[in-house]
Amino acid sequence: MDEVTSSLPEAPDSVREADAPRDSALAHFGNDQPLKLDAGVSLSPFQIAYRTYGALNAERSNAVLICHALTGDQHVVGTHPVTKKSGWWETLVGPGKPVDTDRYFVICSNVVGGCMGTSGPASINPATGKPWGLEFPVITIRDMVRAQAMLLDHLGIDTLFAVVGGSMGGMQVLQWAESYPERVFAALPIACATRHSAQNIAFHEVGRQAIMADPEWRGGRYHLEGTNPRRGLAVARMGAHITYLSDAALHRKFGRKFQDRENPTFSFDADFQVESYLRHQGISFVERFDANSYLYLTRAMDYFDLAADHNGVLANAFRGAPTRFCVISFTSDWLFPTSESRAIVHALNASSARVSFAEIVSDKGHDAFLLDEPEMFGIVRGFLDGASKARGLKSTKAV
Amino acid sequence: MDEVTSSLPEAPDSVREADAPRDSALAHFGNDQPLKLDAGVSLSPFQIAYRTYGALNAERSNAVLICHALTGDQHVVGTHPVTKKSGWWETLVGPGKPVDTDRYFVICSNVVGGCMGTSGPASINPATGKPWGLEFPVITIRDMVRAQAMLLDHLGIDTLFAVVGGSMGGMQVLQWAESYPERVFAALPIACATRHSAQNIAFHEVGRQAIMADPEWRGGRYHLEGTNPRRGLAVARMGAHITYLSDAALHRKFGRKFQDRENPTFSFDADFQVESYLRHQGISFVERFDANSYLYLTRAMDYFDLAADHNGVLANAFRGAPTRFCVISFTSDWLFPTSESRAIVHALNASSARVSFAEIVSDKGHDAFLLDEPEMFGIVRGFLDGASKARGLKSTKAV
Repeated sequence: MDEVTSSLPEAPDSVREADAPRDSALAHFGNDQPLKLDAGVSLSPFQIAYRTYGALNAERSNAVLICHALTGDQHVVGTHPVTKKSGWWETLVGPGKPVDTDRYFVICSNVVGGCMGTSGPASINPATGKPWGLEFPVITIRDMVRAQAMLLDHLGIDTLFAVVGGSMGGMQVLQWAESYPERVFAALPIACATRHSAQNIAFHEVGRQAIMADPEWRGGRYHLEGTNPRRGLAVARMGAHITYLSDAALHRKFGRKFQDRENPTFSFDADFQVESYLRHQGISFVERFDANSYLYLTRAMDYFDLAADHNGVLANAFRGAPTRFCVISFTSDWLFPTSESRAIVHALNASSARVSFAEIVSDKGHDAFLLDEPEMFGIVRGFLDGASKARGLKSTKAV
Repeated sequence: MDEVTSSLPEAPDSVREADAPRDSALAHFGNDQPLKLDAGVSLSPFQIAYRTYGALNAERSNAVLICHALTGDQHVVGTHPVTKKSGWWETLVGPGKPVDTDRYFVICSNVVGGCMGTSGPASINPATGKPWGLEFPVITIRDMVRAQAMLLDHLGIDTLFAVVGGSMGGMQVLQWAESYPERVFAALPIACATRHSAQNIAFHEVGRQAIMADPEWRGGRYHLEGTNPRRGLAVARMGAHITYLSDAALHRKFGRKFQDRENPTFSFDADFQVESYLRHQGISFVERFDANSYLYLTRAMDYFDLAADHNGVLANAFRGAPTRFCVISFTSDWLFPTSESRAIVHALNASSARVSFAEIVSDKGHDAFLLDEPEMFGIVRGFLDGASKARGLKSTKAV
């Protein structure tokens, strides 16, 4: 599973490898290639950090784009340069895995607004020479996808064999099918929705308020002022993390078990195991994530509303799309419940698109898409196998 | 609906009316009447702020204790002295209402650990002459009920005709039936559980961390240091508030509607109505609530586990109880789902207690118990009517 970036065509702009996080490649887009944003402004210059796995075939037809979730990044497989943990989707992606890197050329890029090498609020604003902070333009899911399309152009890939993602990644999958239907042969949106619900927005807003309430946030200028809203970001992460798990999963994992003892301490220490677990989630998150990026990416999810761009008729978002879809949800996911996936399927049916749908029984909540879910693995493998036959994929040789 | 405190027997200790919030009466318990706490220490002296509505009958048999929820207080009916809003349960309590103050003598006291006149972490520690802060002992639901029982003794009331409460108030109702079964004729626990779940504890812990992350919290010594962790408390309230509403209620109320405009602002202002609403909830809450009290009361709820006190057998908590129960839940309450109420009912059945149960169809979430729910009103009225016949209640004349 070697990086094959070197076998790809030369980048049109200089690739500043020195700026890329270890293990990532970097595509730099100069002033001649601005990223036009929904906010009505352009981002230019900008850069995208990405990783690839497997080899692009001679026909350049076996590329699979993985879209990461809110707190994910391009490190799908392999050791993460910051956390030293294994990639976030090694359950699904790799040699012999459902997204088989022996067959497919897998690409994953850090989203615009992120903090793992792609331009975001922690990057240097070329106009000032200082970190952007809140001067960075507010971005949308569509902007993320626009940037990814520019990366594909950069890599010389016209059409994706498949685009796959869960949660915010799933939103990008749907946006791909809407924005560039002719460039997506197969789409796998998992545990997502075509719009963020009021409850979803509410949870995100609490996280943002936790960050902005931290005096070290300094109106977003903490990089300049040498502070870091770690406590606010940790609280945001803790709250969000609860929404990623089901009540049943929390009960099974922790129940009401105390830490290392049988009785309460009658204090405000982390008395219950679930408290200690959440605190750990918060503390470890701030080591790898930028607080302003958290604001920008949650905002992008909140703004996502595919139907709104089509006079409220979701089916029109996919009208005439040649893409084949496989929509997956999980029974215990209360953040993006199955009803949201059904709405996608109904819209796809109404637009005469080719779609299959699976609701997987799991008590693991929203995070199930990242975990050991054999039924999901089987469905993804089967769907991609079928699509690869339809696509006539043969070779796995690199260009 | 006059206050009738003056018609009650003289308080055994001096009642320091000056210390009571406007409209409340105050019972002071001296060093000869310590409150023995589950933490193994005693609170002494201490005081309880309370309100009463209606008149105690000659037989002293028509007293109804209302137990308030986490952020409630003794102001069940009538103008709140701080917010100037109407009482929090005027839907249910008042002349001619289901808990009819023309028939029943209604008492509601601020819980121990609270911040509306009853001793809590913002009170003065008599040993130091300074606010308790985190030196205040950690209290439990059982401690709250012990204090209420002392208040009843103080008021010369042996037996409650009924004890009624929702959420944390419902926990107190269940604790009353366990601790003092002979003093409770009828019990109405609404939208509650016999133990806090891992998810409930997790949400509370995020709120506590938001408060403790605020630099103005100062290790709980903010009263002494002239600061106030308002931002942390507001974030805690915002997060908790989401759990009080259902996804459907948020959708109906706000959906994805923007504030005063049709399009996003591409900023981090409160763009969506649901954001503005939540921010308002947070800001208005800190005007009336003490941050340390929030820590103490959430902790008390987390520790609540009636079965744990009976070797894990919930039915043993109610074995032989003469009390008649009416358990109420709401279909869209995901904080205290109906499954928790069913567990109460099963335990009561197993202990041969007299119990009726109603699951009310509502899309309003946990907060339904505070709102206009005609089915709940009918059930409460009917249950109390039946119980009053069984109790042989006749007179509404004051002592």
